[in-house]
Amino acid sequence: MMIVMQETASDEDIKAVIEKIEQAGAIAHPIKGARLTVIGAIGDVEQDVNIESLGLEGQPGVDRLVPILKPYKLASTQIRHGERTVLDIQGRKIGGDHFALIAGPCTVESREQTMETARCVRDAGVTLLRGGAYKPRTSPYAFQGLGGEGLRLLAEAKAETGLPVVTELMDVRDLADVLEVADVIQVGARNMQNYPLLTEIGRSGCPVLLKRGLSATLDELLMAAEYILKEGNPSVMLCERGVRTFETDHRRTTLDIMAIPILKELTHLPVIVDPSHAAGRRDLVLPLSLAAAAAGADGIIVEVHPNPDVAVCDGPQALLADTFAEFASAVQRTAETAGKALSAA
Amino acid sequence: MMIVMQETASDEDIKAVIEKIEQAGAIAHPIKGARLTVIGAIGDVEQDVNIESLGLEGQPGVDRLVPILKPYKLASTQIRHGERTVLDIQGRKIGGDHFALIAGPCTVESREQTMETARCVRDAGVTLLRGGAYKPRTSPYAFQGLGGEGLRLLAEAKAETGLPVVTELMDVRDLADVLEVADVIQVGARNMQNYPLLTEIGRSGCPVLLKRGLSATLDELLMAAEYILKEGNPSVMLCERGVRTFETDHRRTTLDIMAIPILKELTHLPVIVDPSHAAGRRDLVLPLSLAAAAAGADGIIVEVHPNPDVAVCDGPQALLADTFAEFASAVQRTAETAGKALSAA
Amino acid sequence: MMIVMQETASDEDIKAVIEKIEQAGAIAHPIKGARLTVIGAIGDVEQDVNIESLGLEGQPGVDRLVPILKPYKLASTQIRHGERTVLDIQGRKIGGDHFALIAGPCTVESREQTMETARCVRDAGVTLLRGGAYKPRTSPYAFQGLGGEGLRLLAEAKAETGLPVVTELMDVRDLADVLEVADVIQVGARNMQNYPLLTEIGRSGCPVLLKRGLSATLDELLMAAEYILKEGNPSVMLCERGVRTFETDHRRTTLDIMAIPILKELTHLPVIVDPSHAAGRRDLVLPLSLAAAAAGADGIIVEVHPNPDVAVCDGPQALLADTFAEFASAVQRTAETAGKALSAA
Amino acid sequence: MMIVMQETASDEDIKAVIEKIEQAGAIAHPIKGARLTVIGAIGDVEQDVNIESLGLEGQPGVDRLVPILKPYKLASTQIRHGERTVLDIQGRKIGGDHFALIAGPCTVESREQTMETARCVRDAGVTLLRGGAYKPRTSPYAFQGLGGEGLRLLAEAKAETGLPVVTELMDVRDLADVLEVADVIQVGARNMQNYPLLTEIGRSGCPVLLKRGLSATLDELLMAAEYILKEGNPSVMLCERGVRTFETDHRRTTLDIMAIPILKELTHLPVIVDPSHAAGRRDLVLPLSLAAAAAGADGIIVEVHPNPDVAVCDGPQALLADTFAEFASAVQRTAETAGKALSAA
Repeated sequence: MMIVMQETASDEDIKAVIEKIEQAGAIAHPIKGARLTVIGAIGDVEQDVNIESLGLEGQPGVDRLVPILKPYKLASTQIRHGERTVLDIQGRKIGGDHFALIAGPCTVESREQTMETARCVRDAGVTLLRGGAYKPRTSPYAFQGLGGEGLRLLAEAKAETGLPVVTELMDVRDLADVLEVADVIQVGARNMQNYPLLTEIGRSGCPVLLKRGLSATLDELLMAAEYILKEGNPSVMLCERGVRTFETDHRRTTLDIMAIPILKELTHLPVIVDPSHAAGRRDLVLPLSLAAAAAGADGIIVEVHPNPDVAVCDGPQALLADTFAEFASAVQRTAETAGKALSAA
Repeated sequence: MMIVMQETASDEDIKAVIEKIEQAGAIAHPIKGARLTVIGAIGDVEQDVNIESLGLEGQPGVDRLVPILKPYKLASTQIRHGERTVLDIQGRKIGGDHFALIAGPCTVESREQTMETARCVRDAGVTLLRGGAYKPRTSPYAFQGLGGEGLRLLAEAKAETGLPVVTELMDVRDLADVLEVADVIQVGARNMQNYPLLTEIGRSGCPVLLKRGLSATLDELLMAAEYILKEGNPSVMLCERGVRTFETDHRRTTLDIMAIPILKELTHLPVIVDPSHAAGRRDLVLPLSLAAAAAGADGIIVEVHPNPDVAVCDGPQALLADTFAEFASAVQRTAETAGKALSAA
Repeated sequence: MMIVMQETASDEDIKAVIEKIEQAGAIAHPIKGARLTVIGAIGDVEQDVNIESLGLEGQPGVDRLVPILKPYKLASTQIRHGERTVLDIQGRKIGGDHFALIAGPCTVESREQTMETARCVRDAGVTLLRGGAYKPRTSPYAFQGLGGEGLRLLAEAKAETGLPVVTELMDVRDLADVLEVADVIQVGARNMQNYPLLTEIGRSGCPVLLKRGLSATLDELLMAAEYILKEGNPSVMLCERGVRTFETDHRRTTLDIMAIPILKELTHLPVIVDPSHAAGRRDLVLPLSLAAAAAGADGIIVEVHPNPDVAVCDGPQALLADTFAEFASAVQRTAETAGKALSAA
Repeated sequence: MMIVMQETASDEDIKAVIEKIEQAGAIAHPIKGARLTVIGAIGDVEQDVNIESLGLEGQPGVDRLVPILKPYKLASTQIRHGERTVLDIQGRKIGGDHFALIAGPCTVESREQTMETARCVRDAGVTLLRGGAYKPRTSPYAFQGLGGEGLRLLAEAKAETGLPVVTELMDVRDLADVLEVADVIQVGARNMQNYPLLTEIGRSGCPVLLKRGLSATLDELLMAAEYILKEGNPSVMLCERGVRTFETDHRRTTLDIMAIPILKELTHLPVIVDPSHAAGRRDLVLPLSLAAAAAGADGIIVEVHPNPDVAVCDGPQALLADTFAEFASAVQRTAETAGKALSAA
């Protein structure tokens, strides 16, 4: 942490800050500049938390605190000395040189739609099957998912296709039910900072697909991952799914393609991209999927529907089942030019 | 809902959309323009939900859907024919001509700090006492609140000062404990779209202070309120606490002062402003509080600390206890020029 | 400037950075922390510009540069030791304890509309008359202003009412014409970083109302002012007029009310607020004007139209001439509670 | 345009709006819904401009106006019936199946640096040479470019390498000088809405690379292009170079990768991407360039420096000259998988 003093700070102000830092067990390094003084205290994450709780920002003569260290540890590239995390989901590898193609219905709507979509994506060689039983919806009047019945349909689809299943958990009270079916638990963007949920999933040990909140910084995303890692669960994938910007026409959110290379530098965890929810438009899903693969993503998660025109939820963004194999091939080719092989059993 | 057709849409495309709308029980009004056709279907909220689920956006010839109606009902000004909701919290009125001054510690840290702050804000004539027992923290390494012990200290402060208590609930499993102490349950910005939490609080019937998410639109905030109202709980206050923008220097978030008059037009629910968390800087709290009062807010919620330099959390934004009475007077005067009287027992 | 080294930086990397800094004539202060090293070089603005041009960010072992000093000098509070700039526009004071009410038509449309509006705002006791002869319009098909004829009408309004005139300059080639009429030149938000325009206005010595760009940081606004100040023109007013955020419903931009107290801390220049363009809605202009006055703004600039329904441009946001006196009184009262007196001849 | 009436609008209010629309020569189509009335007037762009100037938004009973038509004409896909614009810059094609690799120094700093870089990029087979003689700089204290001397060096580099030149124009008074050297005039992000500049460049007929402003919507970018096209200059390339978001760590702006497929749908003009300025970090330039090519961009513009450590401006984002050929090959391969061939003489 660097403590930047005001230009008008007195020697006493500076001394008082140094004393507080030292009382907190850290070493203070003052640098006297031509116009102002900066006091450095470069320790570790815990020390930074301590220094933040000293209330220095309100103290006389203090202009501001500038964090120097990254606020996360277990998620950082450094802790694994540059080695990348590779998850193993029932024999499917995710991360490193493995590209994950995760596909399936947005919402589990019916037995027929689920089974038909599951077979379609299995035939196209996907890595995992996605599907929502519990759906977070902005409107309380919209369809909220089939719940337990949805979980049963996913279990059936998994049994028939052999595909591991990714499904969302919204309510900590549903954890046990979801664990019976899910090979990967999805945490939605709205719940990225739902700390009790993250903690319980961390304790469960089940692999997690953690979606970035619509206005979460990458540091905040990594801190959310840190909540899970801290409970002893190392199997976390991060998922970029679009951020909120001033541009609200023509698309639902703005996909942050830069998040891919930046996250790959900051963390050892795999980085997945969700172009379907980012765009909300089917025609953008292919170019964005190719862009993600080219930029080095470890996988994508997309929605497929046998008949999107009658989809109960998010139909307009679902890929068509009858052209999905073609889509999968195009993505696979681009992933290969980026040095990754499609991950399968 | 208006369905805007592409310029290249054929008569069959238009006919197909009209048929779908009519099969869904709505009336379709096509308008043929010089360059394109627009099809109107102006019903009510439920009908809009139905039309959205028709998957029209993915259908041939359809350019986009433009919602015309507001997506919420119970929160809308119209449902109460312009009459404003006035909450009654143990005899303190909030809304209408009543201005609520809500103050207290950010976090309950100790018996001494809690009691001292509670007495200070009571002496200054505040409406409600705020204080956090469960604290959502970005870092898993930061202090997470005293939990149950914090609730007990709040109960004690309430018993001594007679002030009703506002405190945050993060985990649906803590609802019963919180209900024993809270006169108002606070839903934090991170949980604004935690639907199981909103639903359970709605069922509890306890008054709610619902904070706007950092990138939530006003419509989304009202939809979150709608989740609570729909369960039969009419006692919801909305709270603007700053939004994320490109401006990340000099302040924590950007207070959306426009949210006050816009929300007053859209909804009958009271609108509270939290300048402390919006700014993260003590010196901005007074000008922002005055601005909020002048713009017509129904109240503010601020943090006070007997000794912010040793506050465990958010010390730099806490007002000083020994100048709080002066702060309260200035806010009261400005609220009065805006036609509101400070609410007390 | 602080140079943060990567955790993996070698001693040679650190030495190379120190040498570069010292060759640039600055003093390097390395701080060795538990996990990484930070090198401080705390000089002045020119030194920071030099250090930025060293290309350190691309050098081996360097993680990032963290600026410590503010990048502007002449605009900073420190350069005047806390004394505030008070402009004198033909006897009207702006800044310090003086509150400026600037009003008039958005665009000069006709002789009748201009004279009628000018008389109306003069009768209400405004400080300056605003009116646009050259209008920046997003669409090339929209009315672009009366140009030279508009300037003549403004001169006539000024002659009759005695009010000094604020008008916008868009094209550096129109400077001489505008200087014949303008007492204050307005630089629009789109031209905030039009450096040739800023430089020429700086050389002209004419007082300036500099509007903040829609996504300009406060530091960038102050750097734009610095371009004018650097040419020897000290008469600069800053104008907050709303910023772009994810919230695009219900208003044109989001007024950054925090900009007022933050700018008052950073700079000695007066701070004006334009609620009309920020909101684009007449009904928001009063609450936002009151909020601005309460938060300590040095003035507001608003649009008035005798008959907004037939205004050629921005009619929906213009205040009504026949209720303008009432509006002016309400703003004056709030400015007085904030310790400022309405400025007049 | 759709005019949405308030729920409380009277029959007279509705009638008054219809009359106004009809007086403006448009046809009004009212749709009476269960809760409110919407009035459609679907004409063309000029009619929308007329309706906007009717001041309807301020009229009794009117809730809001919803534009239906796109506000630009000449830039729209429809005007060319889906055919794409292909520019011919001294025999180099840009647009359609041609991928443009535009490279060179950020700023022309010296004869040696310019010639060395020009030769390097020519050897790697680039399409055009970029280089700045006039540099818009946030700080008035930073190097502002070599001006006329810079233009002469660019002319020399062009003579030796045969590469057409792209260079920025900031000041309309420099147009004639720039036209002597430039094969393509660049309009920087800060000047995207500098209408006098756009108009003069439009009149010059010189091909243009128009950069998107940091918070410009895609519609605004197309309206800026429309200013140029309207003057009879059809040779406009659009350039995405990153937008402002809440995410200000780890990168300079957020590259809007979605802009590529969306612009390709909205307009016939070529779409170029500038990953260097978007990121401000050399290590992000390759993954972002590959992502842009994969997503269907018509080209990229990147910065190269023989020795970025001593670059006067933006060194940290410049690619290294000695690895540029490798970079160019990787981009070419990805462009080819997206169906485009590298454009050369």
